[in-house]
Amino acid sequence: MPPSTPDFVNSPPWLALAALQAGMQAQGTRISSLFATDANRTRDFSLEAAGILLDYSRHLLTREARDRLLALANAAALPAAIQAMFDGEVVNNTEKRPALHVALRSPRRDTVQERAVHAALDRMDVFVDQVLEGTWRGYSGLRITDVVNIGIGGSDLGPAMVHAALTPYHQAALRCHFVSNVDPLHLEQTLAGLDAASTLFIIASKTFTTLETVLNAEAARRWVLASGAPAAQLGRHFVAVSANVEKACAFGIDAANVFPMWDWVGGRYSLWSAIGLPVALGSGMARFRELLAGAHAMDEHFRSAPLAGNMPVILALLNLWYTNFWGAQSKVILPYAQNLHLFPAFLQQLDMESLGKQVRLDGSSLQTASGSILWGSAGTNGQHSFHQLLHQGSMLIPADFIAVAHSHSSNDEQHRQLLANCLAQGRAMMEGLGMEQARAQLLAQGLDADSAVALAPHKAIPGSRPSSTLLLQELSPYTLGALIALYEHKVYVHSLLLGINAFDQWGVELGKVLGKEIHAAMQDESAASGLDASTRMLLQRIEQSRTL
Amino acid sequence: MPPSTPDFVNSPPWLALAALQAGMQAQGTRISSLFATDANRTRDFSLEAAGILLDYSRHLLTREARDRLLALANAAALPAAIQAMFDGEVVNNTEKRPALHVALRSPRRDTVQERAVHAALDRMDVFVDQVLEGTWRGYSGLRITDVVNIGIGGSDLGPAMVHAALTPYHQAALRCHFVSNVDPLHLEQTLAGLDAASTLFIIASKTFTTLETVLNAEAARRWVLASGAPAAQLGRHFVAVSANVEKACAFGIDAANVFPMWDWVGGRYSLWSAIGLPVALGSGMARFRELLAGAHAMDEHFRSAPLAGNMPVILALLNLWYTNFWGAQSKVILPYAQNLHLFPAFLQQLDMESLGKQVRLDGSSLQTASGSILWGSAGTNGQHSFHQLLHQGSMLIPADFIAVAHSHSSNDEQHRQLLANCLAQGRAMMEGLGMEQARAQLLAQGLDADSAVALAPHKAIPGSRPSSTLLLQELSPYTLGALIALYEHKVYVHSLLLGINAFDQWGVELGKVLGKEIHAAMQDESAASGLDASTRMLLQRIEQSRTL
Repeated sequence: MPPSTPDFVNSPPWLALAALQAGMQAQGTRISSLFATDANRTRDFSLEAAGILLDYSRHLLTREARDRLLALANAAALPAAIQAMFDGEVVNNTEKRPALHVALRSPRRDTVQERAVHAALDRMDVFVDQVLEGTWRGYSGLRITDVVNIGIGGSDLGPAMVHAALTPYHQAALRCHFVSNVDPLHLEQTLAGLDAASTLFIIASKTFTTLETVLNAEAARRWVLASGAPAAQLGRHFVAVSANVEKACAFGIDAANVFPMWDWVGGRYSLWSAIGLPVALGSGMARFRELLAGAHAMDEHFRSAPLAGNMPVILALLNLWYTNFWGAQSKVILPYAQNLHLFPAFLQQLDMESLGKQVRLDGSSLQTASGSILWGSAGTNGQHSFHQLLHQGSMLIPADFIAVAHSHSSNDEQHRQLLANCLAQGRAMMEGLGMEQARAQLLAQGLDADSAVALAPHKAIPGSRPSSTLLLQELSPYTLGALIALYEHKVYVHSLLLGINAFDQWGVELGKVLGKEIHAAMQDESAASGLDASTRMLLQRIEQSRTL
Repeated sequence: MPPSTPDFVNSPPWLALAALQAGMQAQGTRISSLFATDANRTRDFSLEAAGILLDYSRHLLTREARDRLLALANAAALPAAIQAMFDGEVVNNTEKRPALHVALRSPRRDTVQERAVHAALDRMDVFVDQVLEGTWRGYSGLRITDVVNIGIGGSDLGPAMVHAALTPYHQAALRCHFVSNVDPLHLEQTLAGLDAASTLFIIASKTFTTLETVLNAEAARRWVLASGAPAAQLGRHFVAVSANVEKACAFGIDAANVFPMWDWVGGRYSLWSAIGLPVALGSGMARFRELLAGAHAMDEHFRSAPLAGNMPVILALLNLWYTNFWGAQSKVILPYAQNLHLFPAFLQQLDMESLGKQVRLDGSSLQTASGSILWGSAGTNGQHSFHQLLHQGSMLIPADFIAVAHSHSSNDEQHRQLLANCLAQGRAMMEGLGMEQARAQLLAQGLDADSAVALAPHKAIPGSRPSSTLLLQELSPYTLGALIALYEHKVYVHSLLLGINAFDQWGVELGKVLGKEIHAAMQDESAASGLDASTRMLLQRIEQSRTL
C-alpha cells in the first residue's frame, strides 16, 4: 500500500512501527542499553558515502525497528520513485514539472537538460574569469571589488550559506554580500561602505517579479546612478540570474548577462545553477565545480545504494520515526564548524518548505505528521545557550551533529577542543547522568551530604536522547556539495514516505495576496474595511506612530 | 496551591484549563470566530507599555480561558514573587543568589548593588570617551579602529544582538566584531582584515576560565605580539569584563581595565552591565544609557501593573497555555526588521536556558511541559523559507511578530511593504483559506474547472493558528531595551508558573565534564577505554582522517 493512499496509516508496516514504539516506551528502552547487547552496533549502524561518515548508532532504534522502517520504505516503492526523479518524470505533479536539480551537477551532457546546464556553466566560466582578471570593469574603469547578490529564499540562502562555508577558499580581491530582506535598511547598510564604481550586483529571481528582489534591485540602480554612472553603463554593474530575459533587459541588464534558470529546478534546489554565481565569484569556478562533483557523488550513492545502506534513506526514516511515532516536532542541526553557521537556516527552507504540507499528491488529507521544524546553530555556541533544554527540557529533540575531522586552521588545540565538545554533547544526550552519579560527583567536589542530596536532582540528566553524527573529512567544496545533496535527497525520501509533493509551496501564496491587500489599505483607508479587526487596529496604530 | 508543589497539575485551576482546551478543541473553536462574537476584542486583548503595543487578540484564547489563566497566575502568588526578585531575595535557590539584573538599569543609587552599578557605568563612560576621542591608543600610537569582543553565551549573544539592532546609531570610526566559537577559524577569519596596532580586544568571562574564551583570548594575544607589540604594551589592546581580576591581570590586562561582573547577575541577563561595552563603544554611551532607560520602564510596568494588564505576565500565560494544553513544542519569533536578525538567537539562550528544566525549585520532578523551543528569523525572509510549514504543516506553532512603525530609512515604500507583509502573515495564519475560496481563486485566475478542483486542496490553509504582534514605535535603544526586558520578565513569570528556577543551568555541566574526558582521549588512546562504542568509533575515524 503506497503512502499516497489515505489508508497508509492503517497499513501493516505503519501499525507495526506504532506497536514497536509503544513497546519501547513501555519498557523504557534506553539507547545505551542497545549497545550493551550488540557488540556490532557501531559497525552496523554507520554508513559512508562521498567523503561523509554517518554514525546513527545513538538512536532509539533497535534492529527490529530499523527492519520495520525499511519495510515501510519498500512499501512506498522507494527505488522506483528515486529512479523516477533522476529520469525526469513529473514528480512535481501540481506544477506538472520534473525536479531535475540532479542534472545541475551531472558531468554528462546526454540529455537536453544536461546540455543546457553545461552551456550555462561554460558561460559562468567566462564571466567569472572576466571579473576576477579585471577585464570586466565598472563604468569609470575600476575593477570590481564587491559583489552584491540581491535575491531571497532559494536565491539567497543557498549561495550565502555556501559562500560562508567556503571562507578559506575566498579570492582575496573580491568581497561578496547578500541582500534579501525588503526592509530597506538591509540594502542601505550593506551599501554604506561600498563604492558604486567598483560594485557589481547580481539580481537573482526566476520570474524577475519577486517583490523584495525587484524593490531592492531598483534601489540599487538608483544608488549606482546617483553615484554618477551613465545610464548606458548600467550593464557594467548589473547581471541577472533569471528565466525572464525580457524583464531583466527592461531593467537595464544586457541579454548576454542574464544567466538562465529553468522551470525544472525549484528555488530551494537551485544553488547548483547560476544562482551559485556569488559562490563561483567568491571562491573561483574550479571550487564551484568541485561542489558540483561532491553533490554528484552523493547523487550516485543515492541512486545506486540498496535502501538499508542508503544514507539519505536512513536519515529520512529516522526523521519519520521521531516525528510520527515519538512525537518530536523538531530536529536540531548542530554543525560544529563556525563556517557552517548559516547551514541550519539553509536547511530550514529546504526541509520545511518541502515537507510542510497538509495534503498528499492526490489532494487527500495527510493523516500523519508532516515534516518538522528544523533549527539550530553552530557549535560550540549552542552549548552556552539552548543545550540546557536539549539535556533537561521535557521534549524529545533529535540532533544532527556535523563534525569536520580536518580544519583549515593550523591551531590544532582549538580544533581538537571543538571536536571533543561535539562528541561529548552526543555522548551526554545519550548517557545522561543518574541521580546517584550526580550526588557522588557533588560529594567528590567537597559538598556536604545535605547539599549534595538537594542539588543532585538539578544536575541529573535523563539521557537516552537520540543523535546522528555526520563526520566530514574536511569542509571542502566537495564534501559540502555531498552534504547538501544528502539533505536534499533525505527530503525527497521523506516526502515519498508521506506521499506528499516535496517540490511545490502553495501555502505561501495566501500571504502574498494578503500582503497586497494590506499594502493597498495602508495607502487608501477605505480599502481596510474588509480586513479583520486586529489588522485594522494595527494599521491605525502604525499610522498614528508614523504621523507623530 | 503553588506551582512549586508536585500536585499543581491536579489543582483546580490547572484542571479547569485542561477542560477548557478540550472543549475548544472538540468544538473546533476558530480564532476568527472569537472576533465575530466580541466587538471589543482588539481593545480588550491589547496592552501598551514602555513604547510597545502588544496585540494578543489573534489567539486561541476566549475571555474565559484568559480568566482561568489569570487564576493560575494568582494561585502561583505572582505579585509576591515578582516583588521578591526586585527586592533581591534569593530567587536562584540552587546557587543561593538573588537575580538582580533589574538593578543594572535602575536610575536609583539606593542599594549596594545600585551603587556598584553606577560606579561601573561611570567607569564605562570614561573608557568609552577615551577610545572614541582617541586618547586611548594602541602600542604604536594609532587610534583604535576595531573592537573585538571575545566571549560566548551571555557574553556574546546579548551585546552582538544589540549592536546589530542599533546599526543606525553606530559610530562611523569604530567597527565592532564578535568572536565566540572555539573553532579557531572564527577568530582567525575575523582578524584577517584587521591591524593589530589599532585593534582592541574585550575579554568577557565572569570566571576568566571559560574554555572557548580563554583559548581565543590567548590566540588573540599571540596575534598582537606577533605583530610587533611589546609585551609591556599588551594592556593597550586588551581589557576585560570579569569578576576574576587576578586571572585577568595574569593574562596581561591592567587591573584598572577590568570591568566588573557580579554573582547576582546571570550571564544571559548581563548585557546591561559592562558586558554591554561593545554596544557602548559601537553606538556611544548615551545610547547605552537609553537602552537601560527603556528596560527600566518595562521593569516599572512589570512591577506595578495588575496581572491582567501586565505584558510579561500575559506573554508567559500564552506560552504556558500552548505548551501545556495545546501540545506546542515551539514558538517562532519573527522580527520584521533586518537589524533584529540576531534576536531569535538571543532569545534562545534567554528562554531555553532558563526554562529547559526537569525539576522544580525543591528538586521534585516537573510534571508539566518545561519551556519550549524558540526559533525564527527576520521577516520577510522566512516567508520565502519556513512559513510554508507555519501555514500548512501539521503542528501548531504560535508566533510572535515584532513590527516597527517608524524606520530609520527614508525608503517609505519598502518599509510599508515590510509592515504589510508582517500584518499579512498574522492574518493568513488566523484566517487561512477554505477549499471553496481556493477553488474560486483558481477559477478566477483562469484555471479550468477540473484543474481547480484538483489544485484547491493544495492551496487551502487550515488557519486558526495563533500569533501575537508587538509593535514598536521605532527600533531605538529605548524600545529595544524595553523589548528585551519584556522577554526577560516573561521568562521569570513562566518559571514561577512552572515552579522552576529560571536562573541556574546545571544541565550544561555534564557536557563540560565529558568534553574534557574526550579531549584527553584524543591525546592519549588509553583514556578512551571508558568511553561508549560510538564515541570510540568516531575518535578512531577522526584520527584516521587527520593522519591521511
